[in-house]
Amino acid sequence: MKFYDCKTAPSPRRVRILMAEKAINIETIQVDLGSGEQFSDAYKSITPLSEVPLLVLDDGTSISQVNAICSYLEEIYPEPPLYGRTPAERALVESANNQIVMNGLSAVAEAFRNSTPGMKNRALPGPHNYAQIPELAERGLARLDHFFKGLDDHFASTQYMIGDYFSVADISALVCIDFAKWVKKPIPADFENLNRWYSQVSERPSAKA
Amino acid sequence: MKFYDCKTAPSPRRVRILMAEKAINIETIQVDLGSGEQFSDAYKSITPLSEVPLLVLDDGTSISQVNAICSYLEEIYPEPPLYGRTPAERALVESANNQIVMNGLSAVAEAFRNSTPGMKNRALPGPHNYAQIPELAERGLARLDHFFKGLDDHFASTQYMIGDYFSVADISALVCIDFAKWVKKPIPADFENLNRWYSQVSERPSAKA
Repeated sequence: MKFYDCKTAPSPRRVRILMAEKAINIETIQVDLGSGEQFSDAYKSITPLSEVPLLVLDDGTSISQVNAICSYLEEIYPEPPLYGRTPAERALVESANNQIVMNGLSAVAEAFRNSTPGMKNRALPGPHNYAQIPELAERGLARLDHFFKGLDDHFASTQYMIGDYFSVADISALVCIDFAKWVKKPIPADFENLNRWYSQVSERPSAKA
Repeated sequence: MKFYDCKTAPSPRRVRILMAEKAINIETIQVDLGSGEQFSDAYKSITPLSEVPLLVLDDGTSISQVNAICSYLEEIYPEPPLYGRTPAERALVESANNQIVMNGLSAVAEAFRNSTPGMKNRALPGPHNYAQIPELAERGLARLDHFFKGLDDHFASTQYMIGDYFSVADISALVCIDFAKWVKKPIPADFENLNRWYSQVSERPSAKA
């Protein structure tokens, strides 16, 4: 297997943290998103849609999308389980993880991509260009306020996203909160529950990934 | 188990089609999204976030999010498998399914919610109100053009989203294309490959769900 990564980007970090939790070592190739290496002919010959992260299996099968890569690694390297230990728990993890992507990570991306000069016409990832919409940058920040408040309320009564079980939903939430620093949205100091959870997951060795 | 559904809405239809393919019968309760029943105190006592669709297990566990509900049903009712038959195929299905949600269903929602008078301040689903952004409605339509073109190219060389294997990715794409009619975006007549696939999946009995 080969893992195409970008050390500075939040999406592949979700995969890196999962790999660190499972002590997985895969040949890793860095793709420099900053200089647009994903749009080079060389990289497009690997993935025409310029996707990073990407996992290429030994038989040449290419797997894109963070969730698909992480689910695949969970199947191949089941220990420790990060997607749940029972059907119901797996459903709760997937639901929480989806909500973090939809309400958290996409809100940061909305704020970041629609306000950053270097992201002009790159308001969405992928092969097509879309103009920045300043109102969308504002909306992203407003959504993050709600997202952080929702997490703070949630962690008032639970250790991790799903009870006392550390899962990929915690990994996604951690990456989201660190990504939010890019749009100058740290956790408010008075969100004690969220700050407690953030300290706890940030102290795991995998968080350095 | 109880399934909270809205017969007219696209998201729960993804679950209904999966249930029809697997011949699953679950007690189903209709929630009238048109009149805002999801915001009633009665429904909020079931799900504070007003989520539809929702699956409530016999022990009271609530599962929200289409993907989480469908994955759970796949585990409990494995035949016929709709999420893939091997780890690699499961990863390809999940990746394709994610891309349909991200590039297709969310583009229709963007166009629909930001242009429909009845959706004023409901530019995003969920408990919080967000103003409509007219440029976002236009962007949604532009994204759909790319999405349809990508599907037409894809179906030039493959029967279903993943080779000759019918999966949840086909279900999501079918629901997306029918949802796109809400924003007056039918499949262009000259997209012969996409029209061929659409006829084929629409003729399955499950498509009536």
